[in-house]
Formats: sequence, structure tokens, C-alpha cells
Amino acid sequence: MNGSDTRTKLEEMAGGMVRSIKAGRNPKFVTLARKRSNIIFDPKTGYLKLGRAKEERDFVNVAQAKRFMQTVAVASKCHKFVSEGLHTTIRGLYYQLKYSLGDDVDENIFSEQAESNPLIEDIEVSLDTTRENLNLNANRKGVLAGNMKVMDRFGDEMIEIDCSKQGRSGWAIPSDVDNDIKFVDIKAKYAIVVEKDALWQRLNEDGFWKKENAILITPQGQAARGTRRLIRKLADAGLPIYVFTDSDAWGWYIYWTIKTGSINLAYIGGAVATPEARFIGVTMSDLDRYEFLNRLTMNSSEVDLKRAQEMLGYEWIKRSKPWVSELERMIKSHKKLEQDALQGPRLTFVDDYIKEKVRDGDFLP
Amino acid sequence: MNGSDTRTKLEEMAGGMVRSIKAGRNPKFVTLARKRSNIIFDPKTGYLKLGRAKEERDFVNVAQAKRFMQTVAVASKCHKFVSEGLHTTIRGLYYQLKYSLGDDVDENIFSEQAESNPLIEDIEVSLDTTRENLNLNANRKGVLAGNMKVMDRFGDEMIEIDCSKQGRSGWAIPSDVDNDIKFVDIKAKYAIVVEKDALWQRLNEDGFWKKENAILITPQGQAARGTRRLIRKLADAGLPIYVFTDSDAWGWYIYWTIKTGSINLAYIGGAVATPEARFIGVTMSDLDRYEFLNRLTMNSSEVDLKRAQEMLGYEWIKRSKPWVSELERMIKSHKKLEQDALQGPRLTFVDDYIKEKVRDGDFLP
Repeated sequence: MNGSDTRTKLEEMAGGMVRSIKAGRNPKFVTLARKRSNIIFDPKTGYLKLGRAKEERDFVNVAQAKRFMQTVAVASKCHKFVSEGLHTTIRGLYYQLKYSLGDDVDENIFSEQAESNPLIEDIEVSLDTTRENLNLNANRKGVLAGNMKVMDRFGDEMIEIDCSKQGRSGWAIPSDVDNDIKFVDIKAKYAIVVEKDALWQRLNEDGFWKKENAILITPQGQAARGTRRLIRKLADAGLPIYVFTDSDAWGWYIYWTIKTGSINLAYIGGAVATPEARFIGVTMSDLDRYEFLNRLTMNSSEVDLKRAQEMLGYEWIKRSKPWVSELERMIKSHKKLEQDALQGPRLTFVDDYIKEKVRDGDFLP
Repeated sequence: MNGSDTRTKLEEMAGGMVRSIKAGRNPKFVTLARKRSNIIFDPKTGYLKLGRAKEERDFVNVAQAKRFMQTVAVASKCHKFVSEGLHTTIRGLYYQLKYSLGDDVDENIFSEQAESNPLIEDIEVSLDTTRENLNLNANRKGVLAGNMKVMDRFGDEMIEIDCSKQGRSGWAIPSDVDNDIKFVDIKAKYAIVVEKDALWQRLNEDGFWKKENAILITPQGQAARGTRRLIRKLADAGLPIYVFTDSDAWGWYIYWTIKTGSINLAYIGGAVATPEARFIGVTMSDLDRYEFLNRLTMNSSEVDLKRAQEMLGYEWIKRSKPWVSELERMIKSHKKLEQDALQGPRLTFVDDYIKEKVRDGDFLP
């Protein structure tokens, strides 16, 4: 699936509507429902995805005609962007829709962006594609360093970016890591995803990825779509994926989002989930392994405790003894632990922590 | 001023204290006060800086002894980081301070990070240096593309990064743009700072910086210290600096922070302020120049209106007729304008907008 396939699909969708009209039938738009009750966790694949419930939109239906027309307007703009080979954002799309009606029309086709956003998702689902293939960039965030190269198209040129020659900065992970971009010469034993940019900088300065032959990634907090997709692609390339976050509600959320996907992105589930990912730490059980950490804990917040309780109710966590033990330990002790605390004894301790855990295969599932 | 000068200064500070003690005098720590009343706008230089009010900390003073001791502890850790040539964050520093007391001491030297943070600023001011020179990384954010090269030290190597060969990603601007890093072959007519990454990506895709021979920067919202410092350095290299934001409270704040510095960073004023910067848009007067924008405005929020009113009270804005007119126009019309709206007629319109404004010298001061 890529951008040019998507162009063809948009044309087929429009063609189907035209045929319906010519044949005197009512043109319809069909997509999978994205409501909560249609989001399921698939234990076989290990990620969140949509179920089979459908949503239809009829042109000849007073309640649905406006949304039908809006959906067609969005699809038509996306077709234009893909044909021009130019990218924008869902906000840029909204302004084009608002502009194109001109001054002569009394009613705006869209009065706010909250109306156009869900229609883009409808089209993604209906055509089994992604926003990136519709030339709509999402927010990007996250950097990478390691022994791999990026071949990126820029204008008419293909540019080679060596991710081992990006100094203190690292390579900034883009929104779209599929179209007109390739990852080559991936020479690494594993990829490690570090929640905080501060720790990524620490490890990068030590040349951790060079010494360990690892791909060092930070999503800079919650992973953006592009970063999740890149992690999926590195797993497809055969690399084990280890995730390293705080031991708190936010850190766990970051991990589970990378691993199983998220409710919001369940509609593109498999493309952005990496069920093979493993959790390297920090863990509450690190308090037994590294004695000094006991004086570097923090009090867990109400949010942490509530989240831990909620997570204990999830099917895929219930089945994992080590996770249940982690969560119960936080709830009992009211303590949490940050990955930054590993810098306590010396700044380079965090390097050794990861090396030891990888060596011992000491991960949570 | 750089990291190794700072090491010497830390040693001189400690040496002075030791000499005081040996001579039977009370060791003192002196810094400039950072309270609001000591932050002044200097109309001659055009930026916010500290006044002359001083703050002294005495070792032999019950009220000040603890903070004195804490300040020395912070300075000692920073000296260690600089000597090792390793970097961390103010959070990493906090964990080292917490760790180093060990289990035997009843009272923690620091019970939370809010205690250590201001002491770092005290030391920056007292030694007339910056956090970056103390090997403490700040949050980083912002990317750059254009005809210039970065020479960055990585381990024992100097690495050359060509900012014209970074594809869709751009070069990620680091926290420290002074130590062990150089900018060479800056071949550009001007630098343009674009508030939103989405617009940066739009312009980068069009090869705007290549066609216009400009340095294209986005701070990705409010500019981080590293990005502000880099803008200052590009101005020092002789480039005109143009800032391109939304026409609203947040956009104006981003501009004025780049131009005059900010209250929070007044203590390093000159290092991060670029009074030469000019505001390219979007402006309320664009509504006259580009008719279509009138149907793409948004309603200004309470925050926008309140902020506009506040800004009208500032000395440096009062003196500027065009700014007064911008602010009054928003207040009267209750409208605001986003830079994204320039994509309305076509995605590449934003390129032409900047080119026309630069050609005509149509800037606000």
C-alpha cells in the first residue's frame, strides 16, 4: 500500500459513485465504524483493530446528504494533493475546503476543522490506506541514531542520510516513512526506544549505539504516528525492539501504545503496532536489583495509581504475571521510578543498565 | 565564553571561598537578583536583561546556610560534569545530588527538583555563563534546512552535517550550539523562522530555501534556548532574520521572545535575543493585501484579546505605530488569522507570500 495505489483507489471510489448515479441507484459511501464498541483487541495478532461493524452514508438521505457531500469534497482534495505530489496537513486541507466555496455561497461547506477530521479517517478506513498515503502529514516527533541509512527523495534527487553521522542531533523521524523513502544498510543487533530525549542525548553522547551496535530511538514522549510506523518497519526488518520508559502511568502508556497500538489509531492497527516489542525498564523490580534506586523513588500520583488499577483489568495484561506484579507493587508501595534516576551513581550508569538487561534477556512481555 | 572558561570560573569561585575561610572571613556567594523588579528592558540594546540588584548568600547565617551549602553542591557537580566532558539535564543533576548523600544522612540535601533549579540559574548569573556551558542540556526543539554546514564533535571525531542534504527531516537543532560545534559555509541571503513545523515541511517540500537561498528554521512553536541562541548566531553572521507566525497572542509571543528575549531568560538576555529580527506576518493588514484571507479568519479568543491589550501597554510596542495598529485592529474586529490559511488558494501560495513580503521589505519592526 502506498500513495499511488491510494490515488487509484480514490478514483475507483469516485467512479463507483458516478456509475451508481448513472444507473439510477443511490450513491453510497461505506466505511468501518470507529466507535468504541467496534474496537477490539485481537489476541492472535496482539494489537487493537476495528471489528466488522459498518457505517454507510447515503446521498439520498436528508440526515446523511451533507456528510456525504463533505466526504466527497475531502476525497477530491486528497486526490488533488496526491496528483500534484504535494503534502499538507489536515489543517491545510480544511483551509482549502473553506476557500474553495468562494464568497458566493451562503453556507460554508465546513464551519470548523472538527467536521473535516473524522471524514479523513473515514476515507483512510474505507480505502484501507493511511493519512500519509493521502499526502496529509501528521505531527512528527522523535529522533534516531545508529548504523543505518535513509534514502530520502527531495525534489528530483534521492538523498542519502547516514544515521551514524548525525552528531548530537540524530536524524529527525518524519511523518511519512513509507512513500519515497527507504531504509538501507540496517546493521544493528536491536533497536532501543527511550522515552525521554534527555536520556537519548545521554546515551548518544556515550556512543552507546555505536558500542552496542543498536539503533537508538527516542519518541520524545508519546510516539507520533511516523515513529510508531518506523518501529514497526524495524521489527519487520528483523530487529528485536526494546522499550525503555519511566515506571509510571505515562511510561506504561507509551510502551503499550507502541506494542498494541492505541484506541485512536485502531483503524490503522497493524501498520503502527509492534506486538513483538519488549519492556526493558525501568521496573519496580529494579528496586531489588539496584539497591541505590530505593532512595531515588518518587511518590506515585493519583493518576498513576488509577491507571495501574485500570491496566490490571485489561485482558492482555491479566494474562501476564510479571506485569500484574509490577502494577500491584506500585499500588501497594505508592512509589514510582524515573529512568533519569539511573544517572544517580554516575552519568554513564544508564548505559550499563541497558547492556545488563539485554545481556540477561531481562524484559517484561 | 565557553565550557572550559566556565570550568576555570567554577574553580575560581571555589578558591575564593576557601581563601575566605582560611582568612577567617565569612564565605559569600554573590549573584544578580532575578526577581521581576530587577528585570529591565534596555531600549539601547533592545532586549530584556537583569538590572544591578544583587543577592548575597552567607555561610554564617542561619537563614542562608542551607542554600549556601546547596549552591556549593550544585557548583561542585557541574564542575565534575564539565571535567568529565559529559552532559546531563537539570533532572540528572538533581538525581546525582540526591544520590550522593547516601543512606547515612537523615536529611536530604534536596527534597525536590524545584530546590536545585534556581541554584543553577544563580550560578549561571554569578559566573556570567550559561547552563549549556555547565554541561546541562535544556529541552531541544526546532529544525533547520538550508545552504550551511554544521561541524559537530561526536566522540573523538568531527562530523560534517550538510543542512542542504537532510531531506524531508531537516537538521535537528541541539540544546548547545556553542561548545564543540561550528557553523560553516553559511551561504544564504536571509533566515526565515516559521512558527509551525507543518508550514516548515510545506516550504521544505517546495525547495523554498533552495530557490530563495534562505535558511529555513522552525522552532516548532515557542523557541527553545538552543534555537534562540542559533538565531542570534545567524544574525551575528550577518543574516537578516524574518519571523513568520500566526497573527494571534501565541504567535506574537513567539516573535517577541525571539526578538527581545523573555522574562524567564532575562538573566542570559543578550545571548538569546535577536533585536534585529523583523516580523514578516501573518498580519491583520494582510486582510487588505490578500482579499481571500477575509473568509479564512477565525474569531479571536479571550486570551488573544487580553494579550493584545497587555501588549499595547509595553514601552517597546507603544513606540511602534504599525504594531499598535495591528493590535488595535484585532481588538476592534475580534478576528485573528493563522499562517496555515495561506494554503487556501493553493498549497504553494505560502512560498509566494514570503517571497513578495521579502521583495517589498514589508515587515513589522
